[in-house]
Amino acid sequence: MAGTDYRQTAVTGGPAVILVESQLGENIGTAARAMFNCVLTDLRLVKPRDGWPSERAKAAASGADIVLDNAKLFDRVEDALGDLQHVFATTARDRDMVKRVVTPRQAAAEMRTLIGEGRACGLIFGPERSGLLNDHVALADTLITVPLNPAFSSLNLAQSVLVIGYEWFTAVDATPASALPLGERVPATKAQLQEFFEHLEEALDRSGFLRNIAKRPSMVRNIRNLFQRAECTEQEVRSLHGMVTALAGPRDRAKPEP
Amino acid sequence: MAGTDYRQTAVTGGPAVILVESQLGENIGTAARAMFNCVLTDLRLVKPRDGWPSERAKAAASGADIVLDNAKLFDRVEDALGDLQHVFATTARDRDMVKRVVTPRQAAAEMRTLIGEGRACGLIFGPERSGLLNDHVALADTLITVPLNPAFSSLNLAQSVLVIGYEWFTAVDATPASALPLGERVPATKAQLQEFFEHLEEALDRSGFLRNIAKRPSMVRNIRNLFQRAECTEQEVRSLHGMVTALAGPRDRAKPEP
Repeated sequence: MAGTDYRQTAVTGGPAVILVESQLGENIGTAARAMFNCVLTDLRLVKPRDGWPSERAKAAASGADIVLDNAKLFDRVEDALGDLQHVFATTARDRDMVKRVVTPRQAAAEMRTLIGEGRACGLIFGPERSGLLNDHVALADTLITVPLNPAFSSLNLAQSVLVIGYEWFTAVDATPASALPLGERVPATKAQLQEFFEHLEEALDRSGFLRNIAKRPSMVRNIRNLFQRAECTEQEVRSLHGMVTALAGPRDRAKPEP
Repeated sequence: MAGTDYRQTAVTGGPAVILVESQLGENIGTAARAMFNCVLTDLRLVKPRDGWPSERAKAAASGADIVLDNAKLFDRVEDALGDLQHVFATTARDRDMVKRVVTPRQAAAEMRTLIGEGRACGLIFGPERSGLLNDHVALADTLITVPLNPAFSSLNLAQSVLVIGYEWFTAVDATPASALPLGERVPATKAQLQEFFEHLEEALDRSGFLRNIAKRPSMVRNIRNLFQRAECTEQEVRSLHGMVTALAGPRDRAKPEP
Protein backbone atom coordinates (compact mmCIF):
# COMPACT_ATOMS: atom_id res chain seq x y z
CA MET A 1 0.00 0.00 0.00
CA ALA A 2 2.62 2.48 1.11
CA GLY A 3 5.38 0.75 -0.79
CA THR A 4 6.84 -0.98 2.25
CA ASP A 5 7.62 -4.65 1.75
CA TYR A 6 6.09 -6.14 4.85
CA ARG A 7 6.81 -9.66 3.61
CA GLN A 8 10.44 -9.14 4.48
CA THR A 9 9.72 -8.60 8.14
CA ALA A 10 7.01 -11.21 8.28
CA VAL A 11 8.62 -14.42 9.28
CA THR A 12 10.86 -13.01 11.94
CA GLY A 13 8.78 -10.11 13.18
CA GLY A 14 5.34 -10.68 14.57
CA PRO A 15 3.91 -12.33 17.64
CA ALA A 16 3.13 -16.05 17.59
CA VAL A 17 -0.57 -16.96 17.41
CA ILE A 18 -1.48 -19.89 19.66
CA LEU A 19 -4.87 -21.49 19.01
CA VAL A 20 -5.87 -23.66 21.96
CA GLU A 21 -8.13 -26.64 21.26
CA SER A 22 -9.78 -25.12 18.21
CA GLN A 23 -12.81 -27.17 17.29
CA LEU A 24 -13.13 -26.83 13.52
CA GLY A 25 -10.40 -27.09 10.90
CA GLU A 26 -12.29 -24.45 8.95
CA ASN A 27 -11.81 -21.98 11.81
CA ILE A 28 -8.08 -22.64 11.91
CA GLY A 29 -8.03 -21.91 8.17
CA THR A 30 -9.89 -18.61 8.45
CA ALA A 31 -7.69 -17.65 11.39
CA ALA A 32 -4.60 -18.39 9.28
CA ARG A 33 -6.01 -16.22 6.51
CA ALA A 34 -6.58 -13.37 8.98
CA MET A 35 -3.03 -13.84 10.28
CA PHE A 36 -1.51 -13.56 6.84
CA ASN A 37 -3.68 -10.51 6.08
CA CYS A 38 -1.71 -8.94 8.92
CA VAL A 39 1.66 -10.53 8.02
CA LEU A 40 1.62 -12.87 11.02
CA THR A 41 3.04 -16.29 10.19
CA ASP A 42 3.95 -18.09 13.42
CA LEU A 43 0.91 -20.33 14.04
CA ARG A 44 0.91 -22.81 16.93
CA LEU A 45 -1.89 -25.30 17.50
CA VAL A 46 -2.60 -26.93 20.84
CA LYS A 47 -4.68 -30.10 20.45
CA PRO A 48 -6.91 -29.09 17.52
CA ARG A 49 -10.06 -31.16 18.03
CA ASP A 50 -10.47 -32.32 14.42
CA GLY A 51 -6.82 -33.33 13.96
CA TRP A 52 -3.94 -31.95 11.94
CA PRO A 53 -3.18 -31.41 9.09
CA SER A 54 -6.67 -30.49 7.96
CA GLU A 55 -8.03 -30.23 4.42
CA ARG A 56 -10.83 -28.02 5.68
CA ALA A 57 -8.31 -25.63 7.16
CA LYS A 58 -6.50 -25.44 3.83
CA ALA A 59 -9.70 -24.76 1.91
CA ALA A 60 -10.73 -22.01 4.32
CA ALA A 61 -7.32 -20.32 4.34
CA SER A 62 -7.92 -18.92 0.83
CA GLY A 63 -4.25 -19.13 -0.07
CA ALA A 64 -2.56 -18.43 3.26
CA ASP A 65 -0.81 -21.78 2.86
CA ILE A 66 2.51 -20.49 4.16
CA VAL A 67 0.92 -20.07 7.59
CA LEU A 68 -0.67 -23.53 7.69
CA ASP A 69 2.39 -25.28 6.26
CA ASN A 70 4.58 -23.86 9.01
CA ALA A 71 2.11 -24.43 11.86
CA LYS A 72 3.55 -26.24 14.87
CA LEU A 73 1.57 -28.74 16.90
CA PHE A 74 1.64 -29.01 20.73
CA ASP A 75 -0.03 -31.13 23.39
CA ARG A 76 0.07 -28.51 26.13
CA VAL A 77 -0.37 -24.74 26.19
CA GLU A 78 2.70 -24.49 28.42
CA ASP A 79 4.84 -26.07 25.70
CA ALA A 80 3.43 -23.83 22.98
CA LEU A 81 4.48 -20.80 25.04
CA GLY A 82 7.82 -22.16 26.11
CA ASP A 83 10.09 -19.89 24.06
CA LEU A 84 8.00 -16.74 24.50
CA GLN A 85 8.76 -13.86 26.85
CA HIS A 86 5.48 -11.96 26.93
CA VAL A 87 2.10 -13.52 26.31
CA PHE A 88 -1.27 -11.84 25.77
CA ALA A 89 -4.43 -13.89 26.31
CA THR A 90 -7.58 -12.87 24.48
CA THR A 91 -10.79 -12.97 26.44
CA ALA A 92 -14.27 -11.62 25.87
CA ARG A 93 -15.33 -11.76 29.49
CA ASP A 94 -14.14 -10.57 32.87
CA ARG A 95 -11.99 -13.23 34.52
CA ASP A 96 -11.93 -11.73 38.01
CA MET A 97 -8.16 -11.99 37.96
CA VAL A 98 -5.79 -9.25 38.99
CA LYS A 99 -4.17 -9.12 35.59
CA ARG A 100 -3.85 -6.10 33.39
CA VAL A 101 -6.46 -5.81 30.58
CA VAL A 102 -5.58 -3.84 27.47
CA THR A 103 -7.30 -2.90 24.22
CA PRO A 104 -6.01 -4.42 20.96
CA ARG A 105 -4.49 -1.04 20.07
CA GLN A 106 -2.60 -0.84 23.34
CA ALA A 107 -1.49 -4.46 22.97
CA ALA A 108 -0.20 -3.71 19.48
CA ALA A 109 1.81 -0.76 20.73
CA GLU A 110 3.23 -2.84 23.58
CA MET A 111 4.09 -5.75 21.27
CA ARG A 112 5.86 -3.39 18.86
CA THR A 113 7.94 -2.13 21.77
CA LEU A 114 8.63 -5.56 23.22
CA ILE A 115 9.52 -7.14 19.88
CA GLY A 116 11.65 -4.11 19.07
CA GLU A 117 13.58 -4.89 22.24
CA GLY A 118 14.04 -8.47 21.06
CA ARG A 119 11.42 -10.06 23.30
CA ALA A 120 9.38 -12.91 21.81
CA CYS A 121 5.62 -12.29 22.12
CA GLY A 122 2.56 -14.45 21.65
CA LEU A 123 -1.22 -14.23 21.51
CA ILE A 124 -3.36 -17.07 22.93
CA PHE A 125 -6.89 -17.71 21.64
CA GLY A 126 -9.22 -20.23 23.24
CA PRO A 127 -11.69 -22.73 21.78
CA GLU A 128 -14.54 -21.26 19.73
CA ARG A 129 -17.39 -21.82 22.16
CA SER A 130 -15.89 -21.57 25.59
CA GLY A 131 -12.83 -19.38 25.31
CA LEU A 132 -9.67 -20.03 27.29
CA LEU A 133 -9.69 -21.91 30.59
CA ASN A 134 -8.73 -19.77 33.56
CA ASP A 135 -5.69 -22.01 34.05
CA HIS A 136 -4.52 -21.04 30.58
CA VAL A 137 -5.32 -17.37 31.10
CA ALA A 138 -3.13 -17.52 34.21
CA LEU A 139 -0.15 -18.36 31.98
CA ALA A 140 -0.41 -14.99 30.26
CA ASP A 141 1.14 -11.68 31.30
CA THR A 142 -1.65 -9.48 30.00
CA LEU A 143 -5.25 -9.85 28.81
CA ILE A 144 -6.70 -8.37 25.62
CA THR A 145 -10.40 -7.60 25.34
CA VAL A 146 -11.78 -6.13 22.12
CA PRO A 147 -14.04 -3.16 22.88
CA LEU A 148 -17.39 -3.94 21.22
CA ASN A 149 -21.13 -3.67 21.81
CA PRO A 150 -21.44 -4.78 25.46
CA ALA A 151 -24.76 -6.41 24.60
CA PHE A 152 -23.30 -8.37 21.67
CA SER A 153 -19.55 -8.71 21.88
CA SER A 154 -18.94 -12.28 20.72
CA LEU A 155 -16.52 -12.58 17.78
CA ASN A 156 -15.63 -15.73 15.95
CA LEU A 157 -12.04 -16.95 16.09
CA ALA A 158 -10.89 -15.48 12.77
CA GLN A 159 -12.46 -12.13 13.59
CA SER A 160 -10.65 -11.95 16.94
CA VAL A 161 -7.39 -12.77 15.19
CA LEU A 162 -8.12 -10.19 12.50
CA VAL A 163 -8.91 -7.29 14.85
CA ILE A 164 -5.80 -7.86 16.94
CA GLY A 165 -3.68 -8.56 13.87
CA TYR A 166 -5.01 -5.45 12.14
CA GLU A 167 -4.00 -3.35 15.13
CA TRP A 168 -0.58 -5.01 15.08
CA PHE A 169 -0.21 -4.32 11.37
CA THR A 170 -1.41 -0.72 11.43
CA ALA A 171 0.68 0.12 14.48
CA VAL A 172 3.56 0.75 12.09
CA ASP A 173 1.74 0.93 8.79
CA ALA A 174 2.69 3.98 6.79
CA THR A 175 -0.55 4.27 4.79
CA PRO A 176 -1.54 7.93 5.04
CA ALA A 177 -4.84 8.46 6.86
CA SER A 178 -6.13 10.28 3.82
CA ALA A 179 -4.75 10.44 0.28
CA LEU A 180 -5.90 11.50 -3.16
CA PRO A 181 -4.48 9.05 -5.71
CA LEU A 182 -3.48 10.90 -8.89
CA GLY A 183 -1.59 8.20 -10.79
CA GLU A 184 0.12 9.89 -13.73
CA ARG A 185 -2.10 12.94 -13.45
CA VAL A 186 -0.72 16.37 -12.55
CA PRO A 187 -2.58 18.65 -10.16
CA ALA A 188 -3.53 21.91 -11.84
CA THR A 189 -1.57 24.99 -10.86
CA LYS A 190 -3.36 27.93 -9.35
CA ALA A 191 -2.60 29.91 -12.53
CA GLN A 192 -4.38 27.27 -14.61
CA LEU A 193 -7.30 27.33 -12.23
CA GLN A 194 -7.34 31.13 -12.28
CA GLU A 195 -7.46 31.15 -16.05
CA PHE A 196 -10.42 28.81 -15.94
CA PHE A 197 -12.18 31.00 -13.37
CA GLU A 198 -11.78 33.98 -15.67
CA HIS A 199 -13.09 32.00 -18.61
CA LEU A 200 -16.07 30.76 -16.62
CA GLU A 201 -16.90 34.11 -15.08
CA GLU A 202 -16.64 35.88 -18.41
CA ALA A 203 -19.11 33.35 -19.81
CA LEU A 204 -21.38 33.75 -16.83
CA ASP A 205 -21.21 37.55 -17.16
CA ARG A 206 -22.17 37.33 -20.79
CA SER A 207 -25.04 35.01 -19.98
CA GLY A 208 -26.39 37.42 -17.36
CA PHE A 209 -25.95 34.90 -14.54
CA LEU A 210 -23.79 37.37 -12.59
CA ARG A 211 -25.77 40.49 -13.41
CA ASN A 212 -26.60 41.31 -9.78
CA ILE A 213 -23.69 43.66 -9.06
CA ALA A 214 -24.21 43.59 -5.28
CA LYS A 215 -24.20 39.81 -5.11
CA ARG A 216 -21.60 39.20 -7.81
CA PRO A 217 -18.54 39.11 -5.49
CA SER A 218 -19.98 36.50 -3.15
CA MET A 219 -21.34 34.44 -6.05
CA VAL A 220 -17.91 34.41 -7.64
CA ARG A 221 -16.29 33.39 -4.37
CA ASN A 222 -18.74 30.55 -3.96
CA ILE A 223 -18.10 29.27 -7.48
CA ARG A 224 -14.36 29.49 -7.00
CA ASN A 225 -14.55 27.68 -3.68
CA LEU A 226 -16.50 24.85 -5.25
CA PHE A 227 -13.83 24.26 -7.89
CA GLN A 228 -11.01 24.71 -5.39
CA ARG A 229 -12.44 21.90 -3.28
CA ALA A 230 -12.38 19.57 -6.26
CA GLU A 231 -8.54 19.61 -6.34
CA CYS A 232 -8.61 19.49 -10.15
CA THR A 233 -5.92 17.99 -12.33
CA GLU A 234 -4.56 19.79 -15.41
CA GLN A 235 -6.59 17.51 -17.64
CA GLU A 236 -9.74 18.24 -15.69
CA VAL A 237 -9.16 21.99 -15.99
CA ARG A 238 -8.80 21.56 -19.76
CA SER A 239 -12.08 19.63 -19.75
CA LEU A 240 -13.77 22.38 -17.77
CA HIS A 241 -12.60 24.96 -20.30
CA GLY A 242 -14.02 22.75 -23.03
CA MET A 243 -17.33 22.42 -21.23
CA VAL A 244 -17.70 26.16 -20.76
CA THR A 245 -16.80 26.79 -24.37
CA ALA A 246 -19.24 24.13 -25.47
CA LEU A 247 -22.02 25.61 -23.37
CA ALA A 248 -21.39 29.31 -23.90
CA GLY A 249 -19.65 29.55 -27.26
CA PRO A 250 -16.07 30.60 -27.92
CA ARG A 251 -14.42 32.94 -25.51
CA ASP A 252 -14.85 36.63 -26.22
CA ARG A 253 -11.27 37.83 -26.24
CA ALA A 254 -11.81 41.55 -25.96
CA LYS A 255 -8.12 42.22 -25.61
CA PRO A 256 -6.29 42.96 -28.85
CA GLU A 257 -4.26 40.13 -30.30
CA PRO A 258 -0.53 40.74 -30.06
CA MET B 1 -17.18 -2.81 28.80
CA ALA B 2 -16.85 0.78 29.84
CA GLY B 3 -20.34 0.88 31.27
CA THR B 4 -21.76 3.00 28.45
CA ASP B 5 -25.07 1.81 27.05
CA TYR B 6 -24.36 1.93 23.34
CA ARG B 7 -27.70 0.31 22.56
CA GLN B 8 -29.37 3.61 23.24
CA THR B 9 -27.50 5.36 20.47
CA ALA B 10 -27.64 2.40 18.12
CA VAL B 11 -30.66 2.79 15.96
CA THR B 12 -30.32 6.49 15.31
CA GLY B 13 -26.58 6.89 15.33
CA GLY B 14 -24.40 4.92 12.99
CA PRO B 15 -23.82 4.86 9.26
CA ALA B 16 -26.00 2.69 7.02
CA VAL B 17 -24.32 -0.45 5.65
CA ILE B 18 -25.23 -1.13 2.02
CA LEU B 19 -24.37 -4.62 0.73
CA VAL B 20 -24.46 -4.63 -3.06
CA GLU B 21 -25.36 -7.92 -4.78
CA SER B 22 -24.07 -10.13 -1.99
CA GLN B 23 -23.87 -13.69 -3.24
CA LEU B 24 -24.48 -15.85 -0.16
CA GLY B 25 -27.12 -15.43 2.51
CA GLU B 26 -24.57 -16.72 4.99
CA ASN B 27 -22.32 -13.77 4.23
CA ILE B 28 -25.14 -11.32 4.81
CA GLY B 29 -25.69 -13.02 8.17
CA THR B 30 -22.07 -12.80 9.26
CA ALA B 31 -21.95 -9.18 8.08
CA ALA B 32 -25.05 -8.45 10.18
CA ARG B 33 -23.36 -10.06 13.17
CA ALA B 34 -20.27 -7.89 12.64
CA MET B 35 -22.51 -4.83 12.33
CA PHE B 36 -24.24 -5.51 15.62
CA ASN B 37 -20.88 -6.20 17.30
CA CYS B 38 -20.22 -2.55 16.47
CA VAL B 39 -23.76 -1.30 17.23
CA LEU B 40 -24.59 -0.67 13.57
CA THR B 41 -28.18 -1.54 12.72
CA ASP B 42 -29.15 0.11 9.41
CA LEU B 43 -28.63 -2.69 6.87
CA ARG B 44 -29.60 -2.16 3.22
CA LEU B 45 -29.43 -4.93 0.64
CA VAL B 46 -29.21 -4.30 -3.09
CA LYS B 47 -30.27 -7.36 -5.11
CA PRO B 48 -28.93 -10.14 -2.85
CA ARG B 49 -28.29 -13.00 -5.28
CA ASP B 50 -29.88 -15.76 -3.18
CA GLY B 51 -33.04 -13.81 -2.38
CA TRP B 52 -34.46 -12.26 0.76
CA PRO B 53 -35.35 -13.08 3.53
CA SER B 54 -32.77 -15.82 3.97
CA GLU B 55 -32.73 -18.63 6.52
CA ARG B 56 -28.99 -19.01 5.98
CA ALA B 57 -28.46 -15.36 6.83
CA LYS B 58 -30.42 -15.81 10.04
CA ALA B 59 -28.43 -18.89 11.08
CA ALA B 60 -25.11 -17.13 10.40
CA ALA B 61 -26.07 -13.94 12.24
CA SER B 62 -25.67 -15.71 15.63
CA GLY B 63 -28.41 -13.66 17.23
CA ALA B 64 -28.07 -10.32 15.47
CA ASP B 65 -31.71 -10.69 14.39
CA ILE B 66 -32.52 -7.05 14.99
CA VAL B 67 -30.25 -6.12 12.10
CA LEU B 68 -31.70 -8.68 9.68
CA ASP B 69 -35.30 -8.01 10.66
CA ASN B 70 -34.91 -4.32 9.89
CA ALA B 71 -32.94 -4.78 6.65
CA LYS B 72 -34.32 -2.85 3.67
CA LEU B 73 -34.28 -4.23 0.14
CA PHE B 74 -33.45 -2.20 -2.99
CA ASP B 75 -33.17 -2.83 -6.72
CA ARG B 76 -30.59 -0.16 -7.40
CA VAL B 77 -27.58 1.16 -5.49
CA GLU B 78 -28.73 4.69 -6.29
CA ASP B 79 -32.00 4.09 -4.43
CA ALA B 80 -30.25 2.54 -1.41
CA LEU B 81 -28.18 5.73 -1.10
CA GLY B 82 -31.01 8.14 -1.80
CA ASP B 83 -31.39 9.62 1.68
CA LEU B 84 -27.66 9.70 2.51
CA GLN B 85 -25.44 12.76 2.42
CA HIS B 86 -21.96 11.25 2.53
CA VAL B 87 -21.09 7.80 1.26
CA PHE B 88 -17.89 5.80 1.70
CA ALA B 89 -17.18 2.94 -0.72
CA THR B 90 -14.95 0.11 0.42
CA THR B 91 -12.41 -1.14 -2.06
CA ALA B 92 -9.38 -3.39 -1.79
CA ARG B 93 -7.78 -2.21 -5.02
CA ASP B 94 -6.75 1.00 -6.67
CA ARG B 95 -9.57 2.29 -8.88
CA ASP B 96 -7.56 4.87 -10.80
CA MET B 97 -10.15 7.47 -9.87
CA VAL B 98 -9.39 10.91 -8.51
CA LYS B 99 -11.31 10.27 -5.31
CA ARG B 100 -9.96 10.56 -1.81
CA VAL B 101 -8.91 7.27 -0.15
CA VAL B 102 -8.95 7.04 3.64
CA THR B 103 -8.09 4.42 6.24
CA PRO B 104 -10.91 2.92 8.33
CA ARG B 105 -9.69 4.96 11.29
CA GLN B 106 -9.84 8.20 9.35
CA ALA B 107 -13.25 7.24 7.94
CA ALA B 108 -14.53 6.58 11.46
CA ALA B 109 -13.36 9.98 12.65
CA GLU B 110 -14.94 11.68 9.64
CA MET B 111 -18.22 9.79 10.08
CA ARG B 112 -18.34 10.75 13.76
CA THR B 113 -17.94 14.39 12.74
CA LEU B 114 -20.42 14.21 9.87
CA ILE B 115 -23.07 12.36 11.86
CA GLY B 116 -22.48 14.74 14.76
CA GLU B 117 -23.39 17.54 12.36
CA GLY B 118 -26.57 15.72 11.42
CA ARG B 119 -25.42 14.36 8.06
CA ALA B 120 -26.56 10.85 7.12
CA CYS B 121 -23.64 8.57 6.19
CA GLY B 122 -23.35 5.19 4.55
CA LEU B 123 -20.81 2.48 3.75
CA ILE B 124 -21.09 0.51 0.48
CA PHE B 125 -19.66 -3.00 0.18
CA GLY B 126 -19.52 -4.88 -3.11
CA PRO B 127 -20.14 -8.54 -4.01
CA GLU B 128 -17.82 -11.07 -2.35
CA ARG B 129 -15.75 -12.04 -5.38
CA SER B 130 -15.56 -8.97 -7.54
CA GLY B 131 -16.01 -5.98 -5.26
CA LEU B 132 -17.95 -2.89 -6.31
CA LEU B 133 -18.35 -1.91 -9.95
CA ASN B 134 -16.61 1.33 -10.85
CA ASP B 135 -20.03 2.83 -11.63
CA HIS B 136 -21.05 2.18 -8.04
CA VAL B 137 -17.75 3.45 -6.65
CA ALA B 138 -18.39 6.66 -8.58
CA LEU B 139 -21.53 7.22 -6.49
CA ALA B 140 -19.43 7.55 -3.34
CA ASP B 141 -17.75 10.63 -1.91
CA THR B 142 -14.76 8.85 -0.42
CA LEU B 143 -13.06 5.46 -0.67
CA ILE B 144 -11.98 3.30 2.26
CA THR B 145 -9.13 0.83 1.89
CA VAL B 146 -8.11 -1.31 4.86
CA PRO B 147 -4.32 -1.24 5.30
CA LEU B 148 -3.20 -4.89 5.24
CA ASN B 149 -0.46 -7.15 3.88
CA PRO B 150 -0.04 -5.81 0.32
CA ALA B 151 0.68 -9.37 -0.84
CA PHE B 152 -2.48 -10.77 0.79
CA SER B 153 -5.06 -8.10 1.48
CA SER B 154 -8.34 -9.81 0.59
CA LEU B 155 -10.89 -9.84 3.41
CA ASN B 156 -14.25 -11.56 3.35
CA LEU B 157 -17.38 -9.42 3.57
CA ALA B 158 -17.98 -9.80 7.31
CA GLN B 159 -14.35 -9.04 8.08
CA SER B 160 -14.44 -5.83 6.04
CA VAL B 161 -17.61 -4.80 7.85
CA LEU B 162 -16.03 -5.70 11.19
CA VAL B 163 -12.81 -3.75 10.75
CA ILE B 164 -14.62 -0.60 9.63
CA GLY B 165 -17.33 -1.06 12.27
CA TYR B 166 -14.72 -1.64 14.96
CA GLU B 167 -13.03 1.63 14.05
CA TRP B 168 -16.43 3.35 14.11
CA PHE B 169 -17.17 1.87 17.53
CA THR B 170 -13.80 2.54 19.12
CA ALA B 171 -13.63 6.11 17.78
CA VAL B 172 -15.68 7.16 20.80
CA ASP B 173 -15.30 4.13 23.02
CA ALA B 174 -14.19 5.00 26.52
CA THR B 175 -12.51 1.68 27.34
CA PRO B 176 -9.17 2.56 28.93
CA ALA B 177 -6.22 1.37 26.84
CA SER B 178 -4.90 -0.45 29.87
CA ALA B 179 -6.56 -1.29 33.17
CA LEU B 180 -5.94 -3.53 36.15
CA PRO B 181 -9.30 -4.93 37.25
CA LEU B 182 -9.43 -5.28 41.04
CA GLY B 183 -13.08 -6.15 41.59
CA GLU B 184 -13.73 -5.97 45.33
CA ARG B 185 -10.05 -6.16 46.11
CA VAL B 186 -8.19 -3.28 47.72
CA PRO B 187 -4.70 -2.30 46.60
CA ALA B 188 -2.19 -2.66 49.43
CA THR B 189 -0.96 0.50 51.08
CA LYS B 190 2.73 1.31 51.09
CA ALA B 191 2.79 0.72 54.87
CA GLN B 192 1.44 -2.80 54.34
CA LEU B 193 4.01 -3.43 51.63
CA GLN B 194 6.76 -1.99 53.83
CA GLU B 195 5.81 -4.32 56.66
CA PHE B 196 6.03 -7.26 54.27
CA PHE B 197 9.44 -6.11 53.03
CA GLU B 198 10.70 -6.01 56.64
CA HIS B 199 9.27 -9.46 57.27
CA LEU B 200 10.84 -10.87 54.13
CA GLU B 201 14.21 -9.22 54.62
CA GLU B 202 14.39 -10.30 58.23
CA ALA B 203 13.75 -13.88 57.09
CA LEU B 204 16.32 -13.54 54.32
CA ASP B 205 18.84 -12.10 56.78
CA ARG B 206 18.25 -15.01 59.14
CA SER B 207 18.65 -17.49 56.28
CA GLY B 208 21.96 -15.94 55.26
CA PHE B 209 20.66 -14.96 51.82
CA LEU B 210 21.60 -11.29 52.41
CA ARG B 211 24.86 -11.94 54.21
CA ASN B 212 27.00 -10.06 51.67
CA ILE B 213 27.04 -6.65 53.37
CA ALA B 214 28.41 -4.83 50.31
CA LYS B 215 25.72 -6.22 48.00
CA ARG B 216 22.88 -6.21 50.50
CA PRO B 217 21.51 -2.72 49.68
CA SER B 218 21.20 -3.38 45.93
CA MET B 219 19.77 -6.86 46.53
CA VAL B 220 17.12 -5.39 48.81
CA ARG B 221 16.27 -2.72 46.26
CA ASN B 222 15.89 -5.32 43.51
CA ILE B 223 13.57 -7.46 45.64
CA ARG B 224 11.47 -4.46 46.62
CA ASN B 225 11.22 -3.33 43.00
CA LEU B 226 10.00 -6.75 41.95
CA PHE B 227 7.13 -6.70 44.45
CA GLN B 228 6.35 -3.06 43.71
CA ARG B 229 5.81 -3.95 40.06
CA ALA B 230 3.28 -6.60 41.03
CA GLU B 231 0.84 -3.94 42.31
CA CYS B 232 -0.26 -6.25 45.14
CA THR B 233 -3.65 -6.23 46.82
CA GLU B 234 -4.06 -6.36 50.61
CA GLN B 235 -5.03 -10.03 50.34
CA GLU B 236 -1.95 -10.78 48.28
CA VAL B 237 0.31 -9.08 50.84
CA ARG B 238 -1.27 -11.23 53.56
CA SER B 239 -0.58 -14.28 51.40
CA LEU B 240 3.03 -13.22 50.95
CA HIS B 241 3.44 -12.87 54.72
CA GLY B 242 1.99 -16.34 55.07
CA MET B 243 4.36 -17.76 52.48
CA VAL B 244 7.42 -16.26 54.13
CA THR B 245 6.29 -17.51 57.52
CA ALA B 246 5.61 -20.94 56.06
CA LEU B 247 9.03 -21.08 54.44
CA ALA B 248 11.13 -19.50 57.16
CA GLY B 249 9.26 -20.19 60.38
CA PRO B 250 7.51 -17.65 62.63
CA ARG B 251 8.81 -14.12 62.68
CA ASP B 252 11.51 -13.36 65.25
CA ARG B 253 9.94 -10.41 67.06
CA ALA B 254 12.95 -9.09 68.94
CA LYS B 255 11.04 -6.07 70.18
CA PRO B 256 9.48 -6.44 73.64
CA GLU B 257 5.74 -6.98 73.70
CA PRO B 258 3.84 -3.99 75.11
